[in-house]
Amino acid sequence: MTNAPTLDILGIGNAIVDVIARAEDGFLEQRGLDRGAMRLIDTAEAAALYDAMGPGLESGGGSAANTCAAAAALGARVGFLGKVADDVLGRVFAHDLKAIGVHYPTPPAKSGAPTARSLILVSPDGQRTMNTYLGACVGFGEADLDEEAVRSAAVTYLEGYLFDPPAAQAAFVRAAGIARDAGREVSMTLSDPFCVGRHRDAFRAFVRDRTDILFANEAEVLSLYGVATFAEALEAVRAEVRVAALTRSEQGSVVVAEGEVFYVPAEPATVVDTTGAGDAYAAGFLAAHVRGLPPAERGRWGSVAAAEIISHFGARPQSDLRALVGAG
Amino acid sequence: MTNAPTLDILGIGNAIVDVIARAEDGFLEQRGLDRGAMRLIDTAEAAALYDAMGPGLESGGGSAANTCAAAAALGARVGFLGKVADDVLGRVFAHDLKAIGVHYPTPPAKSGAPTARSLILVSPDGQRTMNTYLGACVGFGEADLDEEAVRSAAVTYLEGYLFDPPAAQAAFVRAAGIARDAGREVSMTLSDPFCVGRHRDAFRAFVRDRTDILFANEAEVLSLYGVATFAEALEAVRAEVRVAALTRSEQGSVVVAEGEVFYVPAEPATVVDTTGAGDAYAAGFLAAHVRGLPPAERGRWGSVAAAEIISHFGARPQSDLRALVGAG
Repeated sequence: MTNAPTLDILGIGNAIVDVIARAEDGFLEQRGLDRGAMRLIDTAEAAALYDAMGPGLESGGGSAANTCAAAAALGARVGFLGKVADDVLGRVFAHDLKAIGVHYPTPPAKSGAPTARSLILVSPDGQRTMNTYLGACVGFGEADLDEEAVRSAAVTYLEGYLFDPPAAQAAFVRAAGIARDAGREVSMTLSDPFCVGRHRDAFRAFVRDRTDILFANEAEVLSLYGVATFAEALEAVRAEVRVAALTRSEQGSVVVAEGEVFYVPAEPATVVDTTGAGDAYAAGFLAAHVRGLPPAERGRWGSVAAAEIISHFGARPQSDLRALVGAG
Repeated sequence: MTNAPTLDILGIGNAIVDVIARAEDGFLEQRGLDRGAMRLIDTAEAAALYDAMGPGLESGGGSAANTCAAAAALGARVGFLGKVADDVLGRVFAHDLKAIGVHYPTPPAKSGAPTARSLILVSPDGQRTMNTYLGACVGFGEADLDEEAVRSAAVTYLEGYLFDPPAAQAAFVRAAGIARDAGREVSMTLSDPFCVGRHRDAFRAFVRDRTDILFANEAEVLSLYGVATFAEALEAVRAEVRVAALTRSEQGSVVVAEGEVFYVPAEPATVVDTTGAGDAYAAGFLAAHVRGLPPAERGRWGSVAAAEIISHFGARPQSDLRALVGAG
């Protein structure tokens, strides 16, 4: 396949509507919730937690979908694949993606579980704890894999959370194969240290054999390699992956490109809600990557996008990201 | 009736879910939308506008409901009456009120139109333009008037928007009668200059004969009295209403109490989205009023609450309002 790509980025991920609320840390402790983690919950627990939690702000969410939204806002040509149901929240999810310019061809499921939602509790310091009911996402499978979209995208971007729904995991691996066969790049984010822990062998193999551009935060990459220090994890990444960006919150990020290492500072921000910080970083990085910008500049775009996202409630951009990065 | 009130404030209003999106002013012009106004739309227009507008942030809204939410956050004992349908958005509306501590006894409609929504377009300068599909709100009538709740509330607070749904208008007038007969106070906000224009005679009579505490912004009070200057409007208000707060955006507010006039400055704020500014002002004012605080202090609470609301997208508080006003 030698055609020029018609999409810069194709994201594949769980199609989730976020419900974001403030919560005191005591509320998390009472319920035994791990601060900062993502936990899967069933319908009954979702209903009980929703009743107990504070007033919510709803909007389209989902890790790779957030990345797609922010990358589109930065001017990239973006598509997304992920499964919603034919219901009100499904329409909210689809609207929020299409309205920001993301191509979203996956048809909604006509029966089965409702659209996924994540009940996100934001602590006073801005840390977010996610409780996700996967709903219709578990119906995403190889049949939903729009092969033409994968072949047409310069980068196929996969969220690690897709290792949780079994059918999605198969589609995920197949998408990577199609992309590589078409001469495109495959990118993945590890998503969450506990998700990595649940599927460590599969993650290790995928990073080593199929990933061109890896995103991870410190906890995730330590979990992946089972090492105790960031330096060890960085060495493992350098040995296995061509391009990687390892994020370290207020310490900025470390970008690896063809063995070289670049240290990128975080952008100053008043932290309101960290939901989507990593997703936004990946968006900035990839949007700069597909423009052919140098590694440190890709990291800077990531930092700028992340700083915008953490300065308000919600994981989608509320300011003009293009202006913030200084792009034409 | 001589029992002590068990509620400080009972709000009666349209039960609406907000869908807030950024919009360039060109988008408003193209569609002939009046910047800053509230316009009623039908199902077809709601669907078309939703398709055309940007990504949304959903949360419970509605003018009096916003006031109730912020007043509860300020420590007042608050109830709300207003009609939703038995659907997803109705549950979002009810959750967002109850979760902030507002008593909300109105049962959802089991049939008929879906829950109301307002498509709110926020201009780059923070001004909001509202497009409201009233849906289930038009089913609110005298049968939904919880008379015991009205009698139990120190202040019954009515939004002027309720003059639009005809059955609600009747319930509105009856609620005021019940409250007055029980020796309670009646408060009203004029809501919107165009709404005042649509029902001017009814508004004039209601302000003169049934209102103890009036809220209005400059455009609304000029529309009410058909006068050209703020000074004339202020004189008319002083002659007719015992307590009033007239808001003037960044020029602060003018509080009238028993004929005396107090000038209250606005609190400094970076304006992101003015949706709910007046609602929050009324919340602060009423929460201080029911605590017996002096007139200028009521205005200050109003200004502080409004400053919080306009500093982020969405009409419900995202910070600790009690701490912001310095209340114990």
